[in-house]
Amino acid sequence: MPAFSFRVTHVDGRARRGVMTTAHGDVQTPAFMPVGTQGAVKGVIHRDLEQLGADILLSNTYHLYLRPGDGLIARRGGLHAFIGWPRPILTDSGGYQVFSLAARRTIDEEGVRFRSHLDGSAHLLTPEKAVDIQAQLGSDIAMVLDECLASPSGEELVRPSMQRTLRWARRARDRFLTLYEKRGRESFSDRGSFPDRGSFSGDSVIVTNPAQAQFGIVQGGVSPELREESARGTVGVGFEAYAIGGLSVGEPADVMYNVVAGTTPCLPPDRPRYLMGAGTPQDLVESVARGIDLFDCVLPTRNGRNGQLFTSEGPINIKNARYAEDDRPPDPACGCYTCRTCSRAYLRHLFQAGEINACTLNTLHNLHFYLDTLRQIRDAIAFERFESFRAAFHQSLSRRLHDS
Amino acid sequence: MPAFSFRVTHVDGRARRGVMTTAHGDVQTPAFMPVGTQGAVKGVIHRDLEQLGADILLSNTYHLYLRPGDGLIARRGGLHAFIGWPRPILTDSGGYQVFSLAARRTIDEEGVRFRSHLDGSAHLLTPEKAVDIQAQLGSDIAMVLDECLASPSGEELVRPSMQRTLRWARRARDRFLTLYEKRGRESFSDRGSFPDRGSFSGDSVIVTNPAQAQFGIVQGGVSPELREESARGTVGVGFEAYAIGGLSVGEPADVMYNVVAGTTPCLPPDRPRYLMGAGTPQDLVESVARGIDLFDCVLPTRNGRNGQLFTSEGPINIKNARYAEDDRPPDPACGCYTCRTCSRAYLRHLFQAGEINACTLNTLHNLHFYLDTLRQIRDAIAFERFESFRAAFHQSLSRRLHDS
Repeated sequence: MPAFSFRVTHVDGRARRGVMTTAHGDVQTPAFMPVGTQGAVKGVIHRDLEQLGADILLSNTYHLYLRPGDGLIARRGGLHAFIGWPRPILTDSGGYQVFSLAARRTIDEEGVRFRSHLDGSAHLLTPEKAVDIQAQLGSDIAMVLDECLASPSGEELVRPSMQRTLRWARRARDRFLTLYEKRGRESFSDRGSFPDRGSFSGDSVIVTNPAQAQFGIVQGGVSPELREESARGTVGVGFEAYAIGGLSVGEPADVMYNVVAGTTPCLPPDRPRYLMGAGTPQDLVESVARGIDLFDCVLPTRNGRNGQLFTSEGPINIKNARYAEDDRPPDPACGCYTCRTCSRAYLRHLFQAGEINACTLNTLHNLHFYLDTLRQIRDAIAFERFESFRAAFHQSLSRRLHDS
Repeated sequence: MPAFSFRVTHVDGRARRGVMTTAHGDVQTPAFMPVGTQGAVKGVIHRDLEQLGADILLSNTYHLYLRPGDGLIARRGGLHAFIGWPRPILTDSGGYQVFSLAARRTIDEEGVRFRSHLDGSAHLLTPEKAVDIQAQLGSDIAMVLDECLASPSGEELVRPSMQRTLRWARRARDRFLTLYEKRGRESFSDRGSFPDRGSFSGDSVIVTNPAQAQFGIVQGGVSPELREESARGTVGVGFEAYAIGGLSVGEPADVMYNVVAGTTPCLPPDRPRYLMGAGTPQDLVESVARGIDLFDCVLPTRNGRNGQLFTSEGPINIKNARYAEDDRPPDPACGCYTCRTCSRAYLRHLFQAGEINACTLNTLHNLHFYLDTLRQIRDAIAFERFESFRAAFHQSLSRRLHDS
């Protein structure tokens, strides 16, 4: 089972192309991770995700912890075995959903107390608990628990929250090292091999993926100083890699781009950088231009279910009556299954009729658009023509007014 | 564009194997037609239907007439072009849905007046109108409008209804011949070719498939005498082939089998015989044994969405708590995508979590089970071992108690 590693293979300006290696295979970066909240990307089965070229899937700890439970998943051999996805998986910490979905949540230094949105049951999520749950899930990349503020907050709220996130990061890393050092693993550099490949159990936690990596998260709102302080502190704790959290929560795009531009130089160049929760196709291109390697976002999947299709000339809303007799594919420039076989008229009919296949076909197209955009980005970086790709991409998107 | 034709290639007892040729390709019979009510099989995109080996799709005239409208579909070039399905399509007449779904319906000799279940709008469906709508849809096989009685009715209701269905059949055939004879087409035997392949317009009806065939429907409830009278009358009108309607509506299986056994000898042996709306896997095997060639049924699709999976040892209900930690595939004897990649535990989780993919994966499996059963039936007939297949099939199904 290979240890987690990352290698930058091409640099073009601040954009990087690379390969992230995990126990379940390689991820070509910059990469987009489709969101499979409950162990499934809504409307798209795994086979189609693989055919679309998805290297890595994101799944949500909060949802899986509540249902079917990390214990049940661990007894199945971990999330990969349970859901039948053989490639890399990243799990979030559960924090974001606790802050956005759960009822009656209270936060203190120990962690977050909340009630399940499913049955009202009481739970406590601590930095250590988030590590334990993800150890049982056995994802290839686990995220630390961070405090997620409502967007955008003032510095008087952001500073203490960022500092608490730093203290939680230390606790999360300690817990992670305690769990995994039982296998003789102590640091990023010397985790090359393990005595065997099976899972092991520590403190009644079943570790289902001994080669799991842990990413820290930089917070600090929109303040360059707080972001830098958070980055320095998080890197000081020491993780396999680092994410930028707390963005893509309603702030203007330019503000996000500036925070990204200011933060990536504070992160080690030999580790992948993950911008959490972003974003639009433009956000992806602009963030790659500022040194980001990994993305996840619900836009292609959620908006697909709502009838919005991303195209090379901007999004279209398939519900629109103007498409009722439009025989063109959603995006004439696209080669995906949906665009090869379905007209806008048919897709509109399926959506209006409430057919499940509308969700599948729209999501297939949107994920293809996102994954293909990342493929083009990687190619452009490899040939040192990222800037011209970036200019052409924005020009194409501005070619006509969007209708949604 | 080939004319409609049918050729029996093997006979084994009363079971037949054959090839039904349509303008959009061949159908190996006995065949099962997945139901794509609104131009889509819920949860399964066309590519997967083709991979499952579906030769022919059934679609519903009532639904498509109301939304998006047969006129809109005709302007797209017909149903095949609109939905992007290049293989054969059979459409029902719309009658069954009018009788089961529509509000405030009244029936008289002219036809059925009803209000749309979508928007309450008033409509009149006549035998002629059902022909016109299906001409615009351009299916390969159109069904005549018949009167559908609530199940099971007494002879005092069945006889006049069956006689009305016969009068409607005459009107439907007249309308069909009027529409299509403009292309020089008058009878089954001499419809081999047309001057060109395009659509044509007659009486403001756009005929989008000049090679469409029309099937008559035998009614008569559970009375052998009425069934025989209906069969004689319907064959007397003269259609490309014949269906048995009014079964699989709640009567005991043995009653249905007896009606089928009594009716098929009254139908021409050189034309396909279609048992409408049936049935369970056992129903299919038993009806093939009595000379049936075509089936359609919502069971594999609707029950799949409700969590019921057909297996070689009987149906299982994936909702059942006993499957929460069951790592076996739904049917260890099955080679479908779902059984190759998903455990019962994962499928139960997806169902409990309300994931769309539960519908897709369950339906993929159930359709595979149905289509594979028909493949086995065809092979058995070709090798003259249908009786041993039939015995083994029932024995396997009775091997354990069903749980649903």
